[in-house]
Amino acid sequence: MIPPDKHLEIGSLLFEGVDQIDLTGPFEVLSRIPNSTYRIYGKTAEPVRDVRGLRLTPDAAIGEAPQLDVLHVPGGFGQEDLMEDEAVLRWLRHQAAGARSVFSVCTGALLCGAAGLLRGRRATTHWASFDLLPYFGAIPINERVVVDGTWVFAAGVTAGIDGALRLAAELRGEDAAKAIQLYMAYAPEPPFDSGTPERAPPTILEQARASVAGITKRREATARRAAAKLGVKS
Amino acid sequence: MIPPDKHLEIGSLLFEGVDQIDLTGPFEVLSRIPNSTYRIYGKTAEPVRDVRGLRLTPDAAIGEAPQLDVLHVPGGFGQEDLMEDEAVLRWLRHQAAGARSVFSVCTGALLCGAAGLLRGRRATTHWASFDLLPYFGAIPINERVVVDGTWVFAAGVTAGIDGALRLAAELRGEDAAKAIQLYMAYAPEPPFDSGTPERAPPTILEQARASVAGITKRREATARRAAAKLGVKS
Repeated sequence: MIPPDKHLEIGSLLFEGVDQIDLTGPFEVLSRIPNSTYRIYGKTAEPVRDVRGLRLTPDAAIGEAPQLDVLHVPGGFGQEDLMEDEAVLRWLRHQAAGARSVFSVCTGALLCGAAGLLRGRRATTHWASFDLLPYFGAIPINERVVVDGTWVFAAGVTAGIDGALRLAAELRGEDAAKAIQLYMAYAPEPPFDSGTPERAPPTILEQARASVAGITKRREATARRAAAKLGVKS
Repeated sequence: MIPPDKHLEIGSLLFEGVDQIDLTGPFEVLSRIPNSTYRIYGKTAEPVRDVRGLRLTPDAAIGEAPQLDVLHVPGGFGQEDLMEDEAVLRWLRHQAAGARSVFSVCTGALLCGAAGLLRGRRATTHWASFDLLPYFGAIPINERVVVDGTWVFAAGVTAGIDGALRLAAELRGEDAAKAIQLYMAYAPEPPFDSGTPERAPPTILEQARASVAGITKRREATARRAAAKLGVKS
C-alpha cells in the first residue's frame, strides 16, 4: 500500500484496434482510485476505433504524459501494429522504469514483452496468445490474475476487471477496492460456463481457435522476431 | 431465438454522464452477435463524457436510427438529465414499440420508466435506485438479471455483461453466446466478496450510500414527478 496522501498519476495506453473492454473494464476501477489523476494516452491525441468499432478519444498524447505511478497497457488485435513501433516501446520502457505499478491486460503483455520488460517475469495473457510469452523471456502462469512484484497481469479481456480490483487493493488497501467493487455491483453471474479454453465446449473452442488463427500466426512471427532482437532463446 | 438469416439492427443509447461500463460491458457482447449491425446513438452525434470522464463518440444521432431490433439503454448519473427530455423519451417509446428486445442496464431502467415503458413489468436496476422502480409502475425483482418477455434488465453496472450474454443467447442461441463468452475470457474471479449491498462490509455500504445520497435524492424527486405524470399510485 502507498501512503494515502501520496497523489497517484495513473495512465492507460490507448491505440487503434484496442479491445475496448481491456481499457474500459479497468477504467471503471482506475478512475475511482482515491487521491489520483487518471488519464488516457494515445500515440497521438486523435480518436481511435476499437477492434469492433467503438470510437474512443485519448486525453492526451503519450509525449505529454508525466512520469506515471501506474501504467496500464491493454491489448486487442491492434497491439500487433505497435510491436515494432519504437516510439511506443521506448515510452513503455521509460514509464515502466519509473512506475510504482505496471498493469498489463490481455495481449498488452505482448507489447510489454516487445519492449523487453518481461524477461524472467511471471506473466499471463489471453489464452490464444499464452504460448507466445516465452518468446519474450516471460514465465507463463495459467492464472486469471498474476501478481509479480510491482506488476499485475490480467489474462484475457474481462480479466482486466479482476486485475484492476487487485491493483486497487495493492495501491490503496482492500477497503478502497471493496468500495469500488460495491459501486460497480461486481458480483458476476455468467450465464454459461464457457469462459476458458478448459471449460468451453470443445466445438466452440475449435471454432474460436480457427477464428483467431490468422492473427495468432501473425503474432507468432512477430514474437519470433522480438525474441531474436531481445536475445531470448526460443 | 430469431431465424439466423434475419439480420439484426442493434443500437445503444449514449449520453453525457453515462456510466461507461453500462455501455462498454454490453458492447463487447453486442458487437459480436452474428449477422447484426451494431451502432451507438447519441442525442446528437457529438462526443460525450462518461461520469468519470471517458470520451465516447456516438456513431450517429438518434434521429438517424432505423427501427431497431434490439434497443440497449445504459444508465449512470447522466440518466437523470434525460428523465424529462421528451425527444429522448419519445425515441425510446417509439423504438421499444417496434423492437424484438429491449435491454436495460443499471439506471437505464429509470429512463425506460420515465418513458412509461415499465408499467406492470418485472424489472431491476442499480441497488442504490432499486426502491424507485415502483414509481414507474414496475415490479422490483432483486436479481442480477431479470428477463420479462422481450425485456432483459441487468442490475448495476457490471451486471450488463451478464445481461448481454443472456440476451445474446435469446437472440442467437446458447452456442453463439458461449463463443462470445470464450473470446471475452469471461470466467470472473472477483478478488473480494463486496459486489452487493447484502455482501459488502456494513461500513463500506454505509459510506457508499452516503456518497450517492445527493443523486439518489434527486432521482427520487424526479421519480415522484414521473409517477404523477404517468398516473402511477405511489
